[in-house]
Amino acid sequence: MKIFCTKDILLSGVNTVQKAVSSKNTLPILQGISIKGENNYLSFEATDLEIGIRCILPAQVVEEGTVVLPARLFSEIVRKLPDTTILLEQKSNVLNISYFESNISLKGYDPEEFPLLPDLYDPVSFNLPTFLFKNMVKQTIFSCSTEENRPVFTGVLLQIEEGVIKLVATDTHRLAYRTAKMDNNSEIKFSGIIPSKTLAEIYRLLKEEDELLEIQYSNSQIVFKFGAVYLISRLIDGQFPNYKQVIPQSCETKVHLPLRNFTEVVERASLLARDGSNNANIIRFNLENSVLRIDQTSELGRISEQMHVEMSGKAVSISFNSKYLLDVLKVLENEEIIFELSGSFSPGIIKPLNDPNYIYLVLPVRTS
Amino acid sequence: MKIFCTKDILLSGVNTVQKAVSSKNTLPILQGISIKGENNYLSFEATDLEIGIRCILPAQVVEEGTVVLPARLFSEIVRKLPDTTILLEQKSNVLNISYFESNISLKGYDPEEFPLLPDLYDPVSFNLPTFLFKNMVKQTIFSCSTEENRPVFTGVLLQIEEGVIKLVATDTHRLAYRTAKMDNNSEIKFSGIIPSKTLAEIYRLLKEEDELLEIQYSNSQIVFKFGAVYLISRLIDGQFPNYKQVIPQSCETKVHLPLRNFTEVVERASLLARDGSNNANIIRFNLENSVLRIDQTSELGRISEQMHVEMSGKAVSISFNSKYLLDVLKVLENEEIIFELSGSFSPGIIKPLNDPNYIYLVLPVRTS
Repeated sequence: MKIFCTKDILLSGVNTVQKAVSSKNTLPILQGISIKGENNYLSFEATDLEIGIRCILPAQVVEEGTVVLPARLFSEIVRKLPDTTILLEQKSNVLNISYFESNISLKGYDPEEFPLLPDLYDPVSFNLPTFLFKNMVKQTIFSCSTEENRPVFTGVLLQIEEGVIKLVATDTHRLAYRTAKMDNNSEIKFSGIIPSKTLAEIYRLLKEEDELLEIQYSNSQIVFKFGAVYLISRLIDGQFPNYKQVIPQSCETKVHLPLRNFTEVVERASLLARDGSNNANIIRFNLENSVLRIDQTSELGRISEQMHVEMSGKAVSISFNSKYLLDVLKVLENEEIIFELSGSFSPGIIKPLNDPNYIYLVLPVRTS
Repeated sequence: MKIFCTKDILLSGVNTVQKAVSSKNTLPILQGISIKGENNYLSFEATDLEIGIRCILPAQVVEEGTVVLPARLFSEIVRKLPDTTILLEQKSNVLNISYFESNISLKGYDPEEFPLLPDLYDPVSFNLPTFLFKNMVKQTIFSCSTEENRPVFTGVLLQIEEGVIKLVATDTHRLAYRTAKMDNNSEIKFSGIIPSKTLAEIYRLLKEEDELLEIQYSNSQIVFKFGAVYLISRLIDGQFPNYKQVIPQSCETKVHLPLRNFTEVVERASLLARDGSNNANIIRFNLENSVLRIDQTSELGRISEQMHVEMSGKAVSISFNSKYLLDVLKVLENEEIIFELSGSFSPGIIKPLNDPNYIYLVLPVRTS
């Protein structure tokens, strides 16, 4: 291998694939980043066998070759390289990095041991606007569970049917549901659970200048292609719960709320609602005669929040864990939201005003 | 107490004094912020008995009074208040905070228990440009020790004599020394050790718009006044080592180095100089025939850095802990620095080119 490239190309390649490097110590080779010089490009690859990322960038390849380098050290070195032309030369498993009158030799792994990132066999494929998919991920991913003992809840369900794409996530306490119409893709049908780690990576890597995201899928794997990036991920095995069943179709109380004011009210009330025993900040809402009231007393003091709201239907008192409310309030962008309730013990529904593409369901807390 | 003010005034007051709130659990009252309404201002105070901060800001005081509130909760609440007029009303030790149609009651401490911040008795006083003092602190404070068992090394020596102000800090491995001429203050004489925590606070609080810093001192305490802030701190008891003795007056080798390039060379070399046993990255420099060379081999690989430099005097090989070099290289602003050496076992001196106001001394590491 003999390659001339810039520091920026190396930095961009390493930053893109780095999060796919294994953080576990099982297989040493998985702590490496593979760098292949071929034709007129450098191909960077990393995988922990659950997720694999490839990034292809331009370089002047004088002689082809592949090395696999320890990811952490190599990325630290790349960050500290000078802004000049860098020469990469490989001899057996050692990479020699030259710049100015100086050079660094790095011991690598045997490239033969590095697992190939597969291409999907006969995949179905479609495109989505980048901006749309990022927004869909942002509005659902926070509802995933972090408990590994029930894997289906650690992922986001991607479902495509009848020309509509849906993302659904739940940790059994709350559920986020986001849909979007697809253009000219009414024949596609798919259902698979994507690990939240995969979607967090996609979210991080998708840039505004990557206008289109291509998604390919087979039965057990999914691929995302955009810009210089190819990302492949396993899907999570298992049956996602029937979310349609739990979303109520009607309500007894309907409230219009200004997003920003309501968020601030919940934030303040939660400061005086600390339950030392389980870290859950439970807030009780009273809705009656177009007034939303919160009255909380703790050993630290007392808060009385009162807000005039537009409401219809029955008066109701209901308690929620404030975290589950604040999580969704942070990802909504509309100025006004709708809060739908049906008594103290049924789930609450939060929706943006005049936007049928998003539903957030949250279970109340039973208080004495 | 009955006071109208804005959220910004409360936030600014709380942010300014917050770092003086005690983090220990000895005296509960020290975890409070005192808020006093008087004439047309609000006075915020906090102290941990080592350092005390007062901040005086304008407010509409209808009725005077004082409350002492739990600092952490009050600051969280202030952060979440709406941008509107806030009404503060105190009844016994409870503060009632009203805005819109809502209000919060916070239980406070007994203001009688809150320690008064003293004024210095018959202090000596002088002024310094803010910009100058910030720079002096930045170039010395990092050399303080964090080991509490030798208190004098955890502070910075402030010395004033013959119209010159000096800051000196050392942890016994390195020493930073910064001087500046004072205008019209040739009669002042002072020597005291300021806790590094105090100087870190001054550094954080000094704003560019605060043009002048007033310093007052007595035997055991020092006061800093700027903008709306009054900060008082104890001085550290004990004898600071005779730093003048250890600064060599001549050298055997003198090297001119470009700051940025040299910093990058040291950073890269330190990546391949990890000594697993004590976390010290030892780098060996070879200086001969106007070439600076570093050759490091570790189990991870090898680095050879070579740099043409302007040098005079003897050839020398010498090893340093790279952290002690990088610490000073980060706070220097000149494009070129001077590195003075006298053999492998004598301290190295780093100075900015053509600036007699700064000296950094660093002990070499004996390597086999």
